[in-house]
Amino acid sequence: MKRRNFIKKVGTGALAVGAGLAVKPRRARAAGKHKTYNWKMVTTWPPHFPVLGESADYIAKWVEEMSAGQLKITVYGGGELVPPLQVFDAVSSGTVEMGHGAAYYWAGKHEATQFFAAVPFGLNAQGMNAWIISGGGQELWDELYARFNLKAWPAGNTGVQMGGWFNKEINSIDDLKGLKMRIPGLGGKVLAKAGGNAILVAGGEIYTNLDRGVIDATEWVGPYHDYKMGFYKAAKYYYSPGWHEPGTTLECMVNKQKFEALPKHLQAIIEAACAKSNIWCLSTFEALNEIYLQKLVNEHHVKLRTFPDPVLAKLKVMTKEVLDGMAAKDPFTKKVYDHYMDFKKNHDAWDVISE
Amino acid sequence: MKRRNFIKKVGTGALAVGAGLAVKPRRARAAGKHKTYNWKMVTTWPPHFPVLGESADYIAKWVEEMSAGQLKITVYGGGELVPPLQVFDAVSSGTVEMGHGAAYYWAGKHEATQFFAAVPFGLNAQGMNAWIISGGGQELWDELYARFNLKAWPAGNTGVQMGGWFNKEINSIDDLKGLKMRIPGLGGKVLAKAGGNAILVAGGEIYTNLDRGVIDATEWVGPYHDYKMGFYKAAKYYYSPGWHEPGTTLECMVNKQKFEALPKHLQAIIEAACAKSNIWCLSTFEALNEIYLQKLVNEHHVKLRTFPDPVLAKLKVMTKEVLDGMAAKDPFTKKVYDHYMDFKKNHDAWDVISE
Repeated sequence: MKRRNFIKKVGTGALAVGAGLAVKPRRARAAGKHKTYNWKMVTTWPPHFPVLGESADYIAKWVEEMSAGQLKITVYGGGELVPPLQVFDAVSSGTVEMGHGAAYYWAGKHEATQFFAAVPFGLNAQGMNAWIISGGGQELWDELYARFNLKAWPAGNTGVQMGGWFNKEINSIDDLKGLKMRIPGLGGKVLAKAGGNAILVAGGEIYTNLDRGVIDATEWVGPYHDYKMGFYKAAKYYYSPGWHEPGTTLECMVNKQKFEALPKHLQAIIEAACAKSNIWCLSTFEALNEIYLQKLVNEHHVKLRTFPDPVLAKLKVMTKEVLDGMAAKDPFTKKVYDHYMDFKKNHDAWDVISE
Repeated sequence: MKRRNFIKKVGTGALAVGAGLAVKPRRARAAGKHKTYNWKMVTTWPPHFPVLGESADYIAKWVEEMSAGQLKITVYGGGELVPPLQVFDAVSSGTVEMGHGAAYYWAGKHEATQFFAAVPFGLNAQGMNAWIISGGGQELWDELYARFNLKAWPAGNTGVQMGGWFNKEINSIDDLKGLKMRIPGLGGKVLAKAGGNAILVAGGEIYTNLDRGVIDATEWVGPYHDYKMGFYKAAKYYYSPGWHEPGTTLECMVNKQKFEALPKHLQAIIEAACAKSNIWCLSTFEALNEIYLQKLVNEHHVKLRTFPDPVLAKLKVMTKEVLDGMAAKDPFTKKVYDHYMDFKKNHDAWDVISE
């Protein structure tokens, strides 16, 4: 072999080896990039529950569309795979990859979770989004959920809820004494302070309990959803405002490790699907509530009432006592509470001028 | 050749041909699926304009992230590629693929565009989203923009704006007579009805015009943005509420043909990026407005004022006259107007009970 040809051959070989080395990682990356994922999302809602469950269904649909089928999410209603109130644990442990619900369901894990769902006399939907998305709330939420190997985003909002269904008028704070009412979370604690009995009943069992007198009253969501639940058949008086839930944020959560192991573009897709669901959910409630309120009043002769101002004023004082007591017990809860209230003070001032 | 071998060979050949036929479209599809796109987005805002221009920047960033670089969008500030008010034409003609602005800038193309941005005394941000996303507004918007080979989505919202900057107090409707005010769109038409002069000045020139007395007054957005514009240096009185823009929707538009030629997953990605931007933009304004209002009042001694109720009542009557007159001239405008007002009637009723 001539020296020139030898060099050429070795050169080519070297290039080939180099090319081989270069190609392999590229192929490995490409494989990761196009690997398909089949994830499970458990929810706290009955399967395909109007608006709330549909929000979860939409997230799965949009993620699959945006990822061209690379990430398929199967959504399970509460109880189909795990019971509704085990969603947090199932995602935290990695049994499933995703969950959908509302953060106040996890007050037993950490009381600060409740600030990321609803606080009585707290921020409305627009305020919750402003606090979480642009006011530093997301960072606090991340800090809290990281303890549980979770990450969550706002993924829906009910807007201001209604105050609930009663079989008597509420004319003074004393009318709440001894009242057995289905009302979860912080609202329930405030009712207890007012002398009522806050009772926990899963969504699917409220109607029967109310109809049979096991409970005297219940809150739920708002006119559209409450209509679907048929509460007008078991209670006469429908009260506003929903002092206990002025803009409840729904959450979509992921197992943090599994999320971080996803390619970046799928992470971004999940986050955007949550944002789209967040605005879709609130918009849908806002578009339907008045239509169904009219049906309730005109077709089902529901008596619409407003809590008297002195009742609301007393509930507001009791809310502060509940929140102060909660914050006094735990430094992180206090940190979130202070941050939330500072933001709210500013947001309220702007709200007075603007809305 | 033995018959058996012949059959085998032909069979293999046939299979190979079959496989070839099957493989080619699959490859063609795969090529379409992974083909990269470089798009341009022109905007009505100065480059990287706080919040408004940033919303456009974020859409581009999120689309690139979600598509793993398959769709790259380069964002151009107003005047960088086409003048701000030629965004509509540039996207409509396909000169560029995307645009970002607000639909009321295109009133000259069709007056009904204004309903998809802001109507004086109209829907607030939450109401606009509810109408467009879940109340049938998007379908009307699609119908209108299809005439121009366009499609658009809500991609941001300013929230309730401020009423503007004045160098005198507005104590009666007569104080608006002869007033030279920078106020675009329907608000400008209402001001004209009240005897004022509505003057069109591009964003970048307002401050100088106000400072030199070419105009007596101006509206812009809200405390955060108005602070950045420095208007407090040229006018003393800062009025609320922004009766003329109670929740201005920003839009992201695409050339319809180019959009429909995209793979479905990229279409879904663009739509989700707009939704994410929609909620980010409003949340950011809501989080910052009060902070900057305090700066304006406390550090720059701006005098905060509220339009007297009788002034607002008269402007509201004039707004109805402007809208009625507009609807009388064009059936499609009337269709959108009626739909918007029907929705608003319900939404207002719910708003009274809830917010």
